Amino acid sequence: MINTKLPTIWYGGDYNPDQWPEQIWHEDMELFQKAGINVVTLPVFSWAKLQPSEDEYTFEWLDKILDLIAANGIYACLATSTAAQPAWMSRKYPEVLPVDIDGRKRTHGSRVNFCPNSKVYREFSVRLAAKLAERYHEHPSLLIWHIGNEYGPHCYCGQCAAEFRVWLQEKYGTIEELNKQWNMSFWGHTVYDWADIVPPTNLNGDNRCFQSMTLDYKRFMSDSILACYQGEYNAVKRITPDIPVTTNIWGLFNGLDLHKWGQHMDVVSWDSYPQMNEPMSNVALRHDYMRGLKNGQPFMLMEQTPSQQNWQPYNSLKRPGVMRLWSYQAVARGADTVMFFQLRRSFGACEKYHGAVIEHVGHEDTRVFRECAQLGAELKELGDTLLDSRLASKVALLFDIDTWNAVEITSGPSVDLDYAKQAQKYYKAFYDQNVGVNVISPLSDLSGYDIVAAPVFYMLKPGVADRVKAFVRAGGTFVTTFFSGIVNENDLVTLGGYPGELRDLLGIWVEEIDSLPPEMKNRIVMAAPGFGHLAGEYACGLLCDLLHVESAKPLAVYGDDFYAGMPVLTENAFGQGKAYYVAADAEERFVADLCRTLCEQSGVAAPFRADSGVELTQRHKGSRTFTFVLNHNKDKANVYVDRKYRDLLSKREIAPAGAVEVEAYGVLILEEV
Amino acid sequence: MINTKLPTIWYGGDYNPDQWPEQIWHEDMELFQKAGINVVTLPVFSWAKLQPSEDEYTFEWLDKILDLIAANGIYACLATSTAAQPAWMSRKYPEVLPVDIDGRKRTHGSRVNFCPNSKVYREFSVRLAAKLAERYHEHPSLLIWHIGNEYGPHCYCGQCAAEFRVWLQEKYGTIEELNKQWNMSFWGHTVYDWADIVPPTNLNGDNRCFQSMTLDYKRFMSDSILACYQGEYNAVKRITPDIPVTTNIWGLFNGLDLHKWGQHMDVVSWDSYPQMNEPMSNVALRHDYMRGLKNGQPFMLMEQTPSQQNWQPYNSLKRPGVMRLWSYQAVARGADTVMFFQLRRSFGACEKYHGAVIEHVGHEDTRVFRECAQLGAELKELGDTLLDSRLASKVALLFDIDTWNAVEITSGPSVDLDYAKQAQKYYKAFYDQNVGVNVISPLSDLSGYDIVAAPVFYMLKPGVADRVKAFVRAGGTFVTTFFSGIVNENDLVTLGGYPGELRDLLGIWVEEIDSLPPEMKNRIVMAAPGFGHLAGEYACGLLCDLLHVESAKPLAVYGDDFYAGMPVLTENAFGQGKAYYVAADAEERFVADLCRTLCEQSGVAAPFRADSGVELTQRHKGSRTFTFVLNHNKDKANVYVDRKYRDLLSKREIAPAGAVEVEAYGVLILEEV
Amino acid sequence: MINTKLPTIWYGGDYNPDQWPEQIWHEDMELFQKAGINVVTLPVFSWAKLQPSEDEYTFEWLDKILDLIAANGIYACLATSTAAQPAWMSRKYPEVLPVDIDGRKRTHGSRVNFCPNSKVYREFSVRLAAKLAERYHEHPSLLIWHIGNEYGPHCYCGQCAAEFRVWLQEKYGTIEELNKQWNMSFWGHTVYDWADIVPPTNLNGDNRCFQSMTLDYKRFMSDSILACYQGEYNAVKRITPDIPVTTNIWGLFNGLDLHKWGQHMDVVSWDSYPQMNEPMSNVALRHDYMRGLKNGQPFMLMEQTPSQQNWQPYNSLKRPGVMRLWSYQAVARGADTVMFFQLRRSFGACEKYHGAVIEHVGHEDTRVFRECAQLGAELKELGDTLLDSRLASKVALLFDIDTWNAVEITSGPSVDLDYAKQAQKYYKAFYDQNVGVNVISPLSDLSGYDIVAAPVFYMLKPGVADRVKAFVRAGGTFVTTFFSGIVNENDLVTLGGYPGELRDLLGIWVEEIDSLPPEMKNRIVMAAPGFGHLAGEYACGLLCDLLHVESAKPLAVYGDDFYAGMPVLTENAFGQGKAYYVAADAEERFVADLCRTLCEQSGVAAPFRADSGVELTQRHKGSRTFTFVLNHNKDKANVYVDRKYRDLLSKREIAPAGAVEVEAYGVLILEEV
Repeated sequence: MINTKLPTIWYGGDYNPDQWPEQIWHEDMELFQKAGINVVTLPVFSWAKLQPSEDEYTFEWLDKILDLIAANGIYACLATSTAAQPAWMSRKYPEVLPVDIDGRKRTHGSRVNFCPNSKVYREFSVRLAAKLAERYHEHPSLLIWHIGNEYGPHCYCGQCAAEFRVWLQEKYGTIEELNKQWNMSFWGHTVYDWADIVPPTNLNGDNRCFQSMTLDYKRFMSDSILACYQGEYNAVKRITPDIPVTTNIWGLFNGLDLHKWGQHMDVVSWDSYPQMNEPMSNVALRHDYMRGLKNGQPFMLMEQTPSQQNWQPYNSLKRPGVMRLWSYQAVARGADTVMFFQLRRSFGACEKYHGAVIEHVGHEDTRVFRECAQLGAELKELGDTLLDSRLASKVALLFDIDTWNAVEITSGPSVDLDYAKQAQKYYKAFYDQNVGVNVISPLSDLSGYDIVAAPVFYMLKPGVADRVKAFVRAGGTFVTTFFSGIVNENDLVTLGGYPGELRDLLGIWVEEIDSLPPEMKNRIVMAAPGFGHLAGEYACGLLCDLLHVESAKPLAVYGDDFYAGMPVLTENAFGQGKAYYVAADAEERFVADLCRTLCEQSGVAAPFRADSGVELTQRHKGSRTFTFVLNHNKDKANVYVDRKYRDLLSKREIAPAGAVEVEAYGVLILEEV
Repeated sequence: MINTKLPTIWYGGDYNPDQWPEQIWHEDMELFQKAGINVVTLPVFSWAKLQPSEDEYTFEWLDKILDLIAANGIYACLATSTAAQPAWMSRKYPEVLPVDIDGRKRTHGSRVNFCPNSKVYREFSVRLAAKLAERYHEHPSLLIWHIGNEYGPHCYCGQCAAEFRVWLQEKYGTIEELNKQWNMSFWGHTVYDWADIVPPTNLNGDNRCFQSMTLDYKRFMSDSILACYQGEYNAVKRITPDIPVTTNIWGLFNGLDLHKWGQHMDVVSWDSYPQMNEPMSNVALRHDYMRGLKNGQPFMLMEQTPSQQNWQPYNSLKRPGVMRLWSYQAVARGADTVMFFQLRRSFGACEKYHGAVIEHVGHEDTRVFRECAQLGAELKELGDTLLDSRLASKVALLFDIDTWNAVEITSGPSVDLDYAKQAQKYYKAFYDQNVGVNVISPLSDLSGYDIVAAPVFYMLKPGVADRVKAFVRAGGTFVTTFFSGIVNENDLVTLGGYPGELRDLLGIWVEEIDSLPPEMKNRIVMAAPGFGHLAGEYACGLLCDLLHVESAKPLAVYGDDFYAGMPVLTENAFGQGKAYYVAADAEERFVADLCRTLCEQSGVAAPFRADSGVELTQRHKGSRTFTFVLNHNKDKANVYVDRKYRDLLSKREIAPAGAVEVEAYGVLILEEV
Repeated sequence: MINTKLPTIWYGGDYNPDQWPEQIWHEDMELFQKAGINVVTLPVFSWAKLQPSEDEYTFEWLDKILDLIAANGIYACLATSTAAQPAWMSRKYPEVLPVDIDGRKRTHGSRVNFCPNSKVYREFSVRLAAKLAERYHEHPSLLIWHIGNEYGPHCYCGQCAAEFRVWLQEKYGTIEELNKQWNMSFWGHTVYDWADIVPPTNLNGDNRCFQSMTLDYKRFMSDSILACYQGEYNAVKRITPDIPVTTNIWGLFNGLDLHKWGQHMDVVSWDSYPQMNEPMSNVALRHDYMRGLKNGQPFMLMEQTPSQQNWQPYNSLKRPGVMRLWSYQAVARGADTVMFFQLRRSFGACEKYHGAVIEHVGHEDTRVFRECAQLGAELKELGDTLLDSRLASKVALLFDIDTWNAVEITSGPSVDLDYAKQAQKYYKAFYDQNVGVNVISPLSDLSGYDIVAAPVFYMLKPGVADRVKAFVRAGGTFVTTFFSGIVNENDLVTLGGYPGELRDLLGIWVEEIDSLPPEMKNRIVMAAPGFGHLAGEYACGLLCDLLHVESAKPLAVYGDDFYAGMPVLTENAFGQGKAYYVAADAEERFVADLCRTLCEQSGVAAPFRADSGVELTQRHKGSRTFTFVLNHNKDKANVYVDRKYRDLLSKREIAPAGAVEVEAYGVLILEEV
């Protein structure tokens, strides 16, 4: 349980009372009660109000708010308010303002607009966090700490450059080692003095000449920003050791090494803003990824919109029922909170068209409020039933930020290669079967899984190949693709033939990598009689490896071009297990048929059968198992249960005979009777 | 009459004799005579020639030119030449060079490339204007003053920032008020010192975090540039109080608050450069807008090209007859001048491929020259007949630069919402019926109109709602659309339910605003038996309001989605009049049918019937009415007159029997016999 | 012969041993032997290794390498290594870093990233070149000097601005002359002091206001960069007067005046990287252009990829046989070397996915290596047979960098006008007939040609028109197009009617130039009975001249629009020859039919007939003629010889009966028996 003070699924969200007169606060309390809201996140952006000048702090207005919510039985997700420094700080200490990758010094304004290596920023932010902890450590409403907000942007200023050099010295020890690991003799970039190292920049046309350097800079930035977070973490932890601490991650992105960050968060929290018409499997992947940052521990859905967003090109309303459905999807995949941005809609500035529980009209008689209140009532009814329950997946998808960055900044072979999309494609193949997947770091423990998928396993960090081999040797099934095993952790190619360290595991040698423009395709022709569900032909393209089997068995060959007849899908028996290699970017149908085959081979299966578009997951707690049924279709759909269940939401019992209907956007939480 | 010295439609244009040897000047005079040219605009860009160094002025060459044109009976639209400062000024006083929104200091060159808050620029420009006035105030050729040229670009330098703070202090008085009006507690932007205010910039990724600030900066820039104009205006006016003063506006754009500027111009003048394949209704709208800047007073067509432009992607020739047609269109909509850029085509630099009356070949035996000379002869023949006649429109379209800017910089709900396009769409519905429209500021007097249209009436400044209500109460017809009544003049949302101050007038409450991507549509389903010409179904999209009628009557409902059946067109009886609300972006056919219906309901009609593509307007002068017939088709077309007319151009009489043929690109100016 | 030391087609390429441990060097030597490699280019990017600090030079590692290759019978294309300065230099002397056209100072890194007017860069680079020459002037492996690498990028810094003013003073003498030649009275840009001249910049929105200035700046930059090259040239030439010197040109681009550069190179060399799916005629044009830079003297193919590139969006593999085919194409068009980038593939940094003779796998058992070795064996077998043979073309295509730049920076009439594409279009018409073309400067000697084509002959430098007239007068055939004869060498329009100085030669007057958007077309309607192969109708567009014939005869007229019936193709008898004018951008079929007709008229023909896609060229040496047959089809194709030949590659004899089959991507080098 995140905090035993509130033993239920937390329900609430971002609240900005400082934007409103006090009279509105009281209206809010009433409306919060009606909506079943039990937690408010604040003050996320009030540094300027809390510290009007360098030497002055003003907490009185916050005291009042916290007392008011406490009086109303509401808890605080207490933010340290450090994501936007006050204007006086930017003016008095211009060093706090960052420089972008084009070498341009930014001016004051916006948010998360500070240099993470600014000593001034670090000192002031830690001091504020400490003051908040000192003042409120005994406040009854204090539930959890929320550090900063959506950390992310990188800085390229002089103080960052200086710190980068220190970071590099710690990593490499000698300049000779750096020259070697960055292959600096290329284009005559050998350096003899740490001072000669200049951060990557777009000023020279491209920040990706030296991928090793760019990668290291990204790692350094992630570490620098993490140090900002840690400074505040330590400050509040010192005073309130028992209060959990988090910061809200703004989704799956490659600006921070989130697997590393997860280790420094007591509970992971994140903000879920699906793009318009994004497949639900992508959202599911993100939930699974967040859950994986702390080894399956329940996470917080810190933000989602009750109705619409404002910063997408087209900000459609969530259709009736969708907000509830997506809230349960988060819970179904491991969230123990359902929280919104925002509780009351701003009346000015750039988020005034972002949806809120309380709309501009200011009363409760709106579709949005009614849906929020219904969900609030349901969650209250669920109480602590689901809390701390865990998912148990037999499939792991390896996902790594460094690999993402390395693939993104590579020069060649194809601009269309997108690491995240490849991960999404393989993830979707399992998702569509309702097979649970853990999205984990390649450095994670693989024992306990039946299948490990690692599409575009481009970068192999030390020990990773051995770990995967041990997994397969022990009977696991491993599947990877083209552009794997190519480089080490510094983006240096593993010489001696692709896929480098994976060559024996996969039993192949990739001689060449062809790159196809989007309009050009090849064919995957299955060898008779096919392989499980795989049969006949499939389209492929993007990158096509020209490979030779060594110990592997070809299961399919290319149908076209001068490499027609060369293997494109191979299977290699390795110890007790098998390793599969997909040598080209295959169409979705191929990946689906392949993954279905591998799941059947390994005995991995969905809880029961369901119509397309119906998502199923299971959370386990002691001996209890909760099966979530989420109908993402805008029409009703069926599930086909084989046992007797009770739905925790409707309290209905469900018999195993024939099809069970789920309403459009409907949700069931089933427990076996 | 703009100036009684020249009691005819002025005919001429920009002339740059300083780019040519004197011998050419004499050839020009001869050719001007042949073309019927009676006014030349100069010296628009000769500051460096007039003031070769800080302390030296050289007017002798200009004396010679002015004497020469005077000797040839030609008048001068005398320019102050301040749109491009000399290089020595930029070098000696770098503060005159502006900084762009990306924080980049510009270098010398190009034009309108100065900081409007530069004291050096202001002093030097006013001094030059004064010197010109002192020298030429008694010159017989002096007809009108032309200040600067196509004012527009904004600056973001330090001196502008400082002046902005002064401007804000004057507007808001206290920093508390500014914090409130900009909602600065959002994202913790509260400031405590005027010095903490930083102008909007793109350096932080987006200059639109604080729409209120960005709007104010745009207003401040418009005011700053206006102050440049006013400085020169006062300088020349002091010496030549009876000579009219203008500056040429470069079309309908949102960089200057032109309604405010209009108040400071003795006569409005503008430069008409339609984009390739632009609908003629857009050009008509711009003429009407310019006419509206000084309450219907005749304006000047200061520039148009005789043949082709150079700065568009594809610079097609105006087809034979089109230059004449478009010239008369300007006159038909209120212009009392027809002027060109340029009289002789430059032989070097970036406008050498811009058309001119005298082409590079240098003689009169060209199609372009012949067309110009024919028009010159016609205008001479028309004499003062049309001068000072006025248009009388019963329909007003409200158009507001601040609203345009506010809609443009809003974050959400849709990037595709384009204020100007919505205005053009409604304008076109009237234009296509040949119903005259005044394009006016929402702050204008509305009495006298039968119909007021205000599409996307997003921002309501103080008093505007009351004014519209008074208009409707007195019997007027008002039509507005989705995204109206949302914010006040500082872009703060009017709380309590959209459309805010218009809620009672329209008798509706808009609960939510859905945003549709371009590929998604809804349907407008008319309630039986339809409403006037409106019947059946129409497509709609972009933004779709989910609204509830309060006192209004639904005339149509949505056909699709979860809000199918909700009203999408409503009518509300209010006092003696009616207010209509179009809740979504409807297809053009709907707007046409709606506006036709409203016109018929109000008894507003075209002078007579005409084939499609034939534009009709009327100018009135005392008891005389001149009806312009403009055939924009590349084929002949008919008009169907019901009385007997005489065509002022051909001197033909036209009988009311059956169809009267107008040649392709033909023009008639009819007066009832 | 480039260097008699190596009397064969040089075969080899870029080699970077400094990126590899010494052990690999020995493996390389073995592999080079197997591949038939006899020349390596190095050290292209080793300045930092050669000069670790300002006062220290370290040549020992290079000594070792050079000795090793010498011991293996391999020669060195010895690079001066000055394309990327060491980091210490950029840090210690920031003036070496350039400023881009947006006014942004670049930081250290990447390559060719120096200010060409930096005195520090010039001194250090010349000193290094001299030191290399001093050390290696007697080294047996020294074959040729390779200065810098792919010179090109322009700088816009203060020292460049200062030097530009000096360059201008030398060119124009007085500021008055500059004002005149740049038409500075336009937009009031007259300057009175050299210090007032500011280089072109994008900071003011567009660097093309003053085309004359922008053109001059480009010329100045080409000269500045050439001075860098010349400094090194002189340094090595002083010590090794008999060793040829070159620098590698990176293709046909408009950043350097390559015709001027050619005069300063002992042998021209260039890097051939066709874009994906680029027509082979474009590649042929580039070879012909390079050959033309030194009047037909054999050139060096300095770089091409053995397999794939890394910096294109999609980096496809060269299909089997294509590398060989393209290598012979270079030879067929005048190359006496076949060289690669690179010999061993890098394992880190941005070119690690660029193909190489030795792939990452490190051994010889790859498709790529086998193809390289096969070609190496063939070239060895050819020995000196082809060396110093010349092509003999009767057709010249005039091509000029200044014209290219002038057309590119012009404002109007159409953004789609692309000088290089027009040249490619006319070139292709000859190429497709297998008629040899010399691509030459308009300042070249035209005697000896039968046909001279000059599409978009926009800019006429002094004397050029006279030279063309003399050519036609003497019996030559000249063909040019729309947008010709418009401006002089400073981009000032030649007044008095287009096409200016060509008006009498062509016998026409172009009154107007219409610009058509892409979706709009006109028709070319041939006058009966047609003209040679030209008959019926063709499409045209882009720019359409409205012209009047004076002495010319119309061969075709426009079919549409208001200028239907006006001539669009004219022929003018002039002296003993004829001059043709194509007044609009005609479809490819028209240009093909026209050029075929002109060739037949002039008796210019292919060596013999060949199927489509088969390229034929001839190199002559004394009495011997070598006919290259290059089948670019991916299927076999035929040639139809009329004499008996022997193929130098297969040693086969070929009889003149019927069709001779050439395999897919196949090559024959035929000599008459």
